Amino acid sequence: MTKEKKLWGGRFQDNTAPLVEDYTSSVAFDARLYAQDIAGSKAHAAMLAQQGIISEQDGQAIIQGLEQISQEIEAGEFVWSKDLEDVHMNIEHRLTTLVGVPGQKLHTGRSRNDQVALDFRLYVRDCLLEWSQLLRGLIAALVGKAMEHRDTLLPGCTHFQPAQPISLAHHLLAYTQMLRRDHERLMDAVKRVSISPLGAAALAGTTHALDPDQVAQTLGLNGVFANSLDTVSDRDFVLEAVFCGSLIMMHLSRLCEEIIIWANPQFAFVRLSDAYATGSSIMPQKKNPDVAELMRGKTGRVYGDLVALLTLMKGLPLAYNRDMQEDKEPFLDTHDTVAPSLAIMAGMLGELEFCPEIMGQALRSGFLNATELADYLAAKGMPFRQAHHATGAAVAYAEEKGCGLEDLSLEELRQFSDLIAQDVFVVLDYKSAVARRNVPGGTGPDSVDRQIADCTSWLDL
Amino acid sequence: MTKEKKLWGGRFQDNTAPLVEDYTSSVAFDARLYAQDIAGSKAHAAMLAQQGIISEQDGQAIIQGLEQISQEIEAGEFVWSKDLEDVHMNIEHRLTTLVGVPGQKLHTGRSRNDQVALDFRLYVRDCLLEWSQLLRGLIAALVGKAMEHRDTLLPGCTHFQPAQPISLAHHLLAYTQMLRRDHERLMDAVKRVSISPLGAAALAGTTHALDPDQVAQTLGLNGVFANSLDTVSDRDFVLEAVFCGSLIMMHLSRLCEEIIIWANPQFAFVRLSDAYATGSSIMPQKKNPDVAELMRGKTGRVYGDLVALLTLMKGLPLAYNRDMQEDKEPFLDTHDTVAPSLAIMAGMLGELEFCPEIMGQALRSGFLNATELADYLAAKGMPFRQAHHATGAAVAYAEEKGCGLEDLSLEELRQFSDLIAQDVFVVLDYKSAVARRNVPGGTGPDSVDRQIADCTSWLDL
Amino acid sequence: MTKEKKLWGGRFQDNTAPLVEDYTSSVAFDARLYAQDIAGSKAHAAMLAQQGIISEQDGQAIIQGLEQISQEIEAGEFVWSKDLEDVHMNIEHRLTTLVGVPGQKLHTGRSRNDQVALDFRLYVRDCLLEWSQLLRGLIAALVGKAMEHRDTLLPGCTHFQPAQPISLAHHLLAYTQMLRRDHERLMDAVKRVSISPLGAAALAGTTHALDPDQVAQTLGLNGVFANSLDTVSDRDFVLEAVFCGSLIMMHLSRLCEEIIIWANPQFAFVRLSDAYATGSSIMPQKKNPDVAELMRGKTGRVYGDLVALLTLMKGLPLAYNRDMQEDKEPFLDTHDTVAPSLAIMAGMLGELEFCPEIMGQALRSGFLNATELADYLAAKGMPFRQAHHATGAAVAYAEEKGCGLEDLSLEELRQFSDLIAQDVFVVLDYKSAVARRNVPGGTGPDSVDRQIADCTSWLDL
Amino acid sequence: MTKEKKLWGGRFQDNTAPLVEDYTSSVAFDARLYAQDIAGSKAHAAMLAQQGIISEQDGQAIIQGLEQISQEIEAGEFVWSKDLEDVHMNIEHRLTTLVGVPGQKLHTGRSRNDQVALDFRLYVRDCLLEWSQLLRGLIAALVGKAMEHRDTLLPGCTHFQPAQPISLAHHLLAYTQMLRRDHERLMDAVKRVSISPLGAAALAGTTHALDPDQVAQTLGLNGVFANSLDTVSDRDFVLEAVFCGSLIMMHLSRLCEEIIIWANPQFAFVRLSDAYATGSSIMPQKKNPDVAELMRGKTGRVYGDLVALLTLMKGLPLAYNRDMQEDKEPFLDTHDTVAPSLAIMAGMLGELEFCPEIMGQALRSGFLNATELADYLAAKGMPFRQAHHATGAAVAYAEEKGCGLEDLSLEELRQFSDLIAQDVFVVLDYKSAVARRNVPGGTGPDSVDRQIADCTSWLDL
Repeated sequence: MTKEKKLWGGRFQDNTAPLVEDYTSSVAFDARLYAQDIAGSKAHAAMLAQQGIISEQDGQAIIQGLEQISQEIEAGEFVWSKDLEDVHMNIEHRLTTLVGVPGQKLHTGRSRNDQVALDFRLYVRDCLLEWSQLLRGLIAALVGKAMEHRDTLLPGCTHFQPAQPISLAHHLLAYTQMLRRDHERLMDAVKRVSISPLGAAALAGTTHALDPDQVAQTLGLNGVFANSLDTVSDRDFVLEAVFCGSLIMMHLSRLCEEIIIWANPQFAFVRLSDAYATGSSIMPQKKNPDVAELMRGKTGRVYGDLVALLTLMKGLPLAYNRDMQEDKEPFLDTHDTVAPSLAIMAGMLGELEFCPEIMGQALRSGFLNATELADYLAAKGMPFRQAHHATGAAVAYAEEKGCGLEDLSLEELRQFSDLIAQDVFVVLDYKSAVARRNVPGGTGPDSVDRQIADCTSWLDL
Repeated sequence: MTKEKKLWGGRFQDNTAPLVEDYTSSVAFDARLYAQDIAGSKAHAAMLAQQGIISEQDGQAIIQGLEQISQEIEAGEFVWSKDLEDVHMNIEHRLTTLVGVPGQKLHTGRSRNDQVALDFRLYVRDCLLEWSQLLRGLIAALVGKAMEHRDTLLPGCTHFQPAQPISLAHHLLAYTQMLRRDHERLMDAVKRVSISPLGAAALAGTTHALDPDQVAQTLGLNGVFANSLDTVSDRDFVLEAVFCGSLIMMHLSRLCEEIIIWANPQFAFVRLSDAYATGSSIMPQKKNPDVAELMRGKTGRVYGDLVALLTLMKGLPLAYNRDMQEDKEPFLDTHDTVAPSLAIMAGMLGELEFCPEIMGQALRSGFLNATELADYLAAKGMPFRQAHHATGAAVAYAEEKGCGLEDLSLEELRQFSDLIAQDVFVVLDYKSAVARRNVPGGTGPDSVDRQIADCTSWLDL
Repeated sequence: MTKEKKLWGGRFQDNTAPLVEDYTSSVAFDARLYAQDIAGSKAHAAMLAQQGIISEQDGQAIIQGLEQISQEIEAGEFVWSKDLEDVHMNIEHRLTTLVGVPGQKLHTGRSRNDQVALDFRLYVRDCLLEWSQLLRGLIAALVGKAMEHRDTLLPGCTHFQPAQPISLAHHLLAYTQMLRRDHERLMDAVKRVSISPLGAAALAGTTHALDPDQVAQTLGLNGVFANSLDTVSDRDFVLEAVFCGSLIMMHLSRLCEEIIIWANPQFAFVRLSDAYATGSSIMPQKKNPDVAELMRGKTGRVYGDLVALLTLMKGLPLAYNRDMQEDKEPFLDTHDTVAPSLAIMAGMLGELEFCPEIMGQALRSGFLNATELADYLAAKGMPFRQAHHATGAAVAYAEEKGCGLEDLSLEELRQFSDLIAQDVFVVLDYKSAVARRNVPGGTGPDSVDRQIADCTSWLDL
Repeated sequence: MTKEKKLWGGRFQDNTAPLVEDYTSSVAFDARLYAQDIAGSKAHAAMLAQQGIISEQDGQAIIQGLEQISQEIEAGEFVWSKDLEDVHMNIEHRLTTLVGVPGQKLHTGRSRNDQVALDFRLYVRDCLLEWSQLLRGLIAALVGKAMEHRDTLLPGCTHFQPAQPISLAHHLLAYTQMLRRDHERLMDAVKRVSISPLGAAALAGTTHALDPDQVAQTLGLNGVFANSLDTVSDRDFVLEAVFCGSLIMMHLSRLCEEIIIWANPQFAFVRLSDAYATGSSIMPQKKNPDVAELMRGKTGRVYGDLVALLTLMKGLPLAYNRDMQEDKEPFLDTHDTVAPSLAIMAGMLGELEFCPEIMGQALRSGFLNATELADYLAAKGMPFRQAHHATGAAVAYAEEKGCGLEDLSLEELRQFSDLIAQDVFVVLDYKSAVARRNVPGGTGPDSVDRQIADCTSWLDL
């Protein structure tokens, strides 16, 4: 045992000090919150001065010091120190160096617990607002493509089997609906993020006569905390943000899957632009949909971030626990994934070339007008299940003959029901099949126009 | 090889038919949606009749048939058949038996894809509304306890170390804030759930002149789908519901953790009622917090349900894919966890006995008034970081002496700063320490009263 | 407030008793462990008698009683009672009714904590062994199909873009490797599952002179626990089992994805048998790959089960906590998913019809012999990166001409390198391209034969 | 629309190029694999030369070039270029610059697909071996503490309620069992990681007469791939590694939870050393268990990494897809969490001060010898359930009297059973209660000694 003990004990003892320092320090990632930290401190200082808790001069000194620090950071001149652990201590330490005693008064009536909560809320809010703009950008790109492909038809699938003809515009507009729900969810989340925790202090509130409302207003927040214990230990807002990000990535992964499959030569429904694909030095005609693949893969990491945060918060007693320091990296990783994914998808889509002719061929080889015949019979009074049956028999007959339903003669068709008349041929035309679905939300061109108009007006909002 | 082939191939061939049937059938769980399926079909039939798509008589026959089926199910007389795969086919089949040809017309203008989406949306909505009521019940229970313990003090913790005295009421009210956010999130989710997909048909919309708005209105929904492809393949609403459930369980797990720890004799802050604990036949004084433990454990399954659904939807091409049949069980499991957990926590909390005296002892043994002294010095003009330092020295001195800060003489205290005067003793009193934190959201009794009033008025809403 | 309190408090109070009973009872799912519970109790009783802790007669009485209970359960005559909470109490209670006082002695030297751990370990072991057999069955099915398609070629993809010709046998055999790793992992897991916890009692071990080794031997286990506290609170074995299940489902999901895509008419590489697809009453030629879709979707639930268990165990103090009752349902759900999925995939694959001709067409349209030309040049001494470049130029030339590389004349080809000679045409032939990759693990027919032989001999093991 | 289009389209178009570059480049993280990439390339070059595929001189030139690159990287002189995308291209590009044409021949018979799989396997193997050493270190630290506390008793808990007296050594040794299982799992995983994929080329194997076995041997690997398609698209080894890491973190989280609770003054079972806690500038006696809290929290991120990888691999068709580039960061994150956590826990534990006296007090206040009395009665022939009942009555009596069972007179005890005699008092002694549990794996001192001896001998292995 002694050998082992020396072997291991010794080795770890020597290493622990720096290991622990690395383990607990957060400045490597929370330095990204510097702008929010400075904004929060400026608002706090201004309020302290206005409430007479510190003097006007002290307030001025603090604010000027913070502005200088902001410039130093943006100019890349600020020296970050891991010893000072986090962004807050780094900035406060520099402030005290710059302005002396007034700098020491900045922390009056607040603690690191409410300060970090405030900074992070501001940061998350800014990111969510950025995502919401990027969502608009992607919706605009989809609408742009939909406008181009209002009359392009392709097989609509269920079970990844061709089922009915639809317009490509309608297909692309389906994604605008997903993204608009994402946008709506973000707005709901922003509502709950935009609450100021300042004044909760470490956990119990403060004895100073602060004016939390003023700070909230200065920072463009909607309200202030209702319970100090809750607000310093609440990370619902991050969880909600990462959940929103998870759904965004899930939606993008579906579009990526379609692009990847459509780019396979058996489909050849799309041609990727060079900017969003990698080639093969061997096969110049080959284009790998790398960007779409990577984006689909990155869905996993955002799901992982969500699980990390859910696990983190499970079973934590009130109030602040150091576990919560682990809240930032998952969100930052989500942000670094969601934001470029949205921007890149908008760009990729903008340059994606669709191949209407090949889509049209795919349409013709699959009896995609069979449902039309069934609906035609039902409209003439045949019970729905019976109409299905008759259509099935007609398709079997046509398949045997090696032609489409539209190629059968009226006599042949009437074998399957007396209700069939000359007007059936309009019904069997693919374009007219699509055109007839002009009900709200349907694939018909009028419905598509209304969807485009609705999106356009939503974007102008 | 042949031996193996016979061995295995043979075995599976024989088994597959029933195995596949079990594998693909959903009636074992989706039968729970019967009420929603019937309500949806009734609304659809009424609309078909009103639009003149089916006759008034047919509409009447369908509706009466459905009402009879509803009674049969509720009376336990309905024979569910696994062969008929799902709740929809079971009911439709029975309807046709009961009312004949009109029953076959019910499916006009809809498909199983929009039907199942409608049923599930109605079901999820009903569950979320149930949760929201249960949340109100738990908030009421917390407020009730807070009213009893407005003046009970206990150590407020950070890092699970005693930090400052707080009131038990304030501690309990922290949970009301979590739950009110849960409630708000549910209301936001309900908004997005309450959209009717009926009329999307299989994927492309229908050619029948349906009136989807009327169906939505009949069913108490807020609106209708905007894109048929999207609405039959959208499961965002379930994901959002299960995410809401995940946060609810996370919040409950935190309260459970506290109850479990507080019930340990080293704390002995609470006594569990018999109804919510199991005893030991050996040690009658022992009470195991089984319910709180199980509830904490059940958090995992709801997280798991969320992961199941996120995984499910990743990378699925448009539109409906059979994978989506896997959407229901995770939600049902979440519902069966969240609803009783909320109800049981309300009941458990109502019967939980807190031990103010023991909490008070815990308070006195931890220098929980040290922050008061620091704030006192800061209020007298000492820079905050300096005030912290002076307080630290005073605590070290008192610890050495084996007494509390409040037990030192004025002379002794003045060793650490000239700013200390007779008024310091009011400051060092625990009760007054709490009382001074009457800022909005603080732990002071006036703040607590305002929080209680706010919750009470919210509950009455 | 009073109104609310009455409203909610009242309602919950009334409901709680039965709610809590349902919430904490486990017999609804742990009754499935009855065979393991009885086997464990029989082994325990036999050992107690042999050690002289109970009399021979008592031992006999217990064993006979347990055997009768086993028969009662299997005959469906046993009355399960939710009041008796779990499978253990149900059986023990019945035993005492049947055999009287000796039944009360069965529990000597054990507690419910080690009993439940034993039962569950036995159950998990049995399931893992079942999976391992089912894996063998699926591997056999894949090998069977590989034997049929040793000479069928199809495009091998990277980035889901055709890259090089491969044999279908090789493609199918790739899955045997995944499944053999799964099998190996299962065997490793079984090793760690097969440890008897009996004798750990509640947490501290027992004072009775038990012989845990004998019990382990009787039950076919490999060893006994090393630390009582650990063994009653260890659920690693379930986690490992569910992780193994997750990888199995992940592997199956990849095969499902390929089947689903290959069944789309743009590919038409496979035709599904009726037993594993659903049709459309409208389009008789249409076959939906429902089973493959569902199986892909079910991957999510097993991932969810894993997350549930990981979350469950995080941060639990020693030793047994009631949270752990939540260990069974996720595993049962995983078992109910993995076992039929493996059996059904074997059956589905056995009946899957591949379409070699269509695969061959796909091959010809994609310059899938470009790499051959590059390798040919490299083999003749051209640096690899340069050979790639020359090949790229040749492909671009052929594409321009609208033909394959194999259709160019020797003169044309020599434009791109002097190293090209008449022997290039053998190289450009698809079949010979595949044939040349006879290195171990390559796609060539000899390599495939060796892989088949290796699998066959592994299966006979 | 046009405004929107210009607004967004324009903005993204400009940004996409650099965005896509960042999005797809991996050198920022895969540069960490440089040593493995160079080792793999050296082994490949040596084999190519030995097989006569390249000349001896070329082989020498390549190897010398790679060694120089290795030195440049370690000296910090290597210029990494994001334009060259990944570690492989960066190194190959530099090699060609250094040694010219021979450098271009290095890639003969391999592709980036098998190269990256090899590098990553080597890297994962090295990490797992590092973890296994760190596990040994932590086990050694636990054994060291167990040796010190062989005779220290504390309340053993179930349901986090004191149940029976146990020795602290036994409690600590429970963790050695968890960690030894972790170690065993790692060894099993290493077995499956240590397979060389080199020779699989892009997906189909190579036409060059490579000797993959030699490469495997040079690199210390156990075997070579069996199927080229599988090996380039297999990431089971990473999943298994991260799963092992998840269980390690789960085990650590349990120990952290105990340390955090024990450090709370209501328990005061442990005193943290300054190196592993943070203080409060205000309350010098206060020590926050930051390191244990953070470690508990970091469990979530490893769980998240596992979910990320599981999600990533779901449903991917064969063979390599770019999604798989997302395999590295989750593993690196896991490694950067697991390795320091193990090292730090060993260090923290080594300096953790346990408080035997306070633990002893806790013991006495909880009837922790009640089970002894029940076992005593059972040993004298009373049926077990009956013995429980009698004990319960005795405890109730003692509690009423305000004393322990050991404080009752023989007469008083005999009220509850005639079987009780003078020898009961030995049984009721805590120390002897522990001492009697000397069965293998029990908490008795002899059992503990055997456990320590077993661990010591395992560590020496």
